[in-house]
Parts: sequence; C-alpha cells; structure tokens
Amino acid sequence: MLKNNLYVALIHFPVMNKNDQPIGSALTTIDLHDIARASITFGVKGFYVITPYEDQATLAKQVIEHWTKGVGGKLNPFRKKALELIRVAATFEDAVNSIKEEKNEPVVTIATSAKKTVGSITTETLRLKLENEASHVLVFGTAWGLADELIDTCDFILDPIYGDADYNHLSVRSAASIYLDRIINGR
Amino acid sequence: MLKNNLYVALIHFPVMNKNDQPIGSALTTIDLHDIARASITFGVKGFYVITPYEDQATLAKQVIEHWTKGVGGKLNPFRKKALELIRVAATFEDAVNSIKEEKNEPVVTIATSAKKTVGSITTETLRLKLENEASHVLVFGTAWGLADELIDTCDFILDPIYGDADYNHLSVRSAASIYLDRIINGR
Repeated sequence: MLKNNLYVALIHFPVMNKNDQPIGSALTTIDLHDIARASITFGVKGFYVITPYEDQATLAKQVIEHWTKGVGGKLNPFRKKALELIRVAATFEDAVNSIKEEKNEPVVTIATSAKKTVGSITTETLRLKLENEASHVLVFGTAWGLADELIDTCDFILDPIYGDADYNHLSVRSAASIYLDRIINGR
Repeated sequence: MLKNNLYVALIHFPVMNKNDQPIGSALTTIDLHDIARASITFGVKGFYVITPYEDQATLAKQVIEHWTKGVGGKLNPFRKKALELIRVAATFEDAVNSIKEEKNEPVVTIATSAKKTVGSITTETLRLKLENEASHVLVFGTAWGLADELIDTCDFILDPIYGDADYNHLSVRSAASIYLDRIINGR
C-alpha cells in the first residue's frame, strides 16, 4: 500500500528528438488518458503534465475539462475520476514547488530512461524510499526521452525496463504503466 | 527467456460496451503501435489484430504498410521492426488456426479480464505453462473488454491487474504492457 506520496510528471520540454537533440514536443492527448488511468489504478497522488507552450497547455486543459466537467465525465465517470488527477504546469520546477507547498515535505525526484545509466536504482530500492517522509515524483519524457539537462536535476534515475529482446522503444504510456505496476506490486 | 512461443491477440469483436452488451469496436491505431512495441520488447512471436470488419482491416493494413514498407519505416526503423509483428485476421479462430499451422503444435489460449473470475490463473502459473511444447496466445479485448462468448472458448483466464486503489479501468495498451512485463520478468 502506497503512503499516498507518489506523483508522476510527464515532460514535453526539455526532451530529446531522434537525432539526439533537445527539443520541446507537442502534446499527445492519449498520454493524458492512459497515464491518468494507470496513475489512479496504482494510487498515484497527482499527475503533472509539463509544457511551457501556452497552446499545448490550453489543449491539455480542454481535454481535462471535457472529461472532468463536460459531457465526457457524464458518459464515463471512471475516466472523469482518472483525469481529475491531472495538473498542468509550465516547468518541472513549478510542479516540484507546487508539491512541496501542498505537502510541506521534501520532494524526491526520480528520472526514468530507456538507457542504462551508471548508478541507476531498481524499483525495489524506490519502493523502500517511498517509506520515507517525503513526496516522490516519477519523471517521464515524451518524444525520445528526457534531456540530460533535466535528468541531471533529478535525485535518482530508475533502471530501464528490459524485456526478452534487445529493443528499448516502449511508448511512454507503456513504460509508465509498467513502472507503476512494478513499484506498487513489487518485482 | 521466452521459448519464442507467445502470441498476442487484440479482439475488436466480440467485445463488451459500457452497458454490458456484446458489440464490435472500431480500430484505435495507437493500440497497434503500443502493443507492437511492447510485444517486440518482451519477445512476443506475433501480434494478431482481430476484426471482422473489412474497412477496419483495411485501415489496420494501411497503418502497418506505412510503417513497414512506406516512408514511416525509413523515418523510424524501430517502429518498422515492431509493426512487422502485426498480422490482421477476421476472427480469433482464424488466428489460432494460423498459429497452429505455422508451428504444428497445439495452441493454448489465455483470456484477460479486468474482473476477477473463479479459477483464473496467476502470471506465474502462465510462465510455467510457457515451458510446454505449445504455442500460447494472450487475448485482449478492446472497448469494455472481451465478451463472455469469446472468454468461454479460451483455455485459461489470467488474474486481473490490481493496483493500490479500487479502480480497474486501465487502457488495453497499459494492460498488455503490464501483463507482458509480468510474464517475462516475473512477479
């Protein structure tokens, strides 16, 4: 059982493109649905969608409003409950500050990456950390993953998800779902 | 390590709608991408997209062709490799017969459901079954899940995915990713 202190952040800037350059990415609305549904399933306290672009933030808010206050929520109350977890912020720093203020506790940030990084931690280690009196934010990158400049600001990096094959190109929706399952249900 | 004998099937008919009635569902193209990427990550041998509707089968084939033979594959060879796993079939029975012919082995079918069913098996039990000389198909439903008439034809049903909260409305993309991770990496 979670201590109600795990948050998720989905970053649209700074992330990498396929040529290994830092960029800002456009919103993919299905990310909001899938990661919100996984978040509520696994007891995540809040899901931050991070974009510095005003038009993208507006789009995110329109999707959220449709499902939480508009006709969508009437048609599908389960979706309403999930999307109510979403908050939109311009920068990751803003999100961390908002969690810090809300909980009045230190915030521990954990980056995710599809590449193995020296010193990355296992989900089992993260499970133990969640017992501490602190909020924890699990950070996911859109496009080709988080830019180093953001990873460098995080306290920890999680081990990548490996499977049976030499292929590490899961969608961010799949990766977030798998990590949350591993963290909550153990590995 | 998988014995190279696990398949995935995504069913668009017969599935349930939110009023608990059996229906046929429309294709969601992101399902093809996300489940193909998870399938190749975890060593799945083939991913069957099942739809009896000709226009939906055509749409599926157009998406696959764009990424495996068209410009998509040139732009993103990783996506090409994933989508090459997809095969389109009109019925689940057709898919099972095609696997049976290809491998000349019995085919064991395993339904998934968000609801707990009496006698459902754990992923650990399924892992042990994968050691047998047989092909295994993990079956997922779109919309509000597989219809009973299809579940009843399957040999086994997997335990649902539970999290921390009383909420069992993961996307089929998330559920497929989590089950494959559990089966391959153990739980």
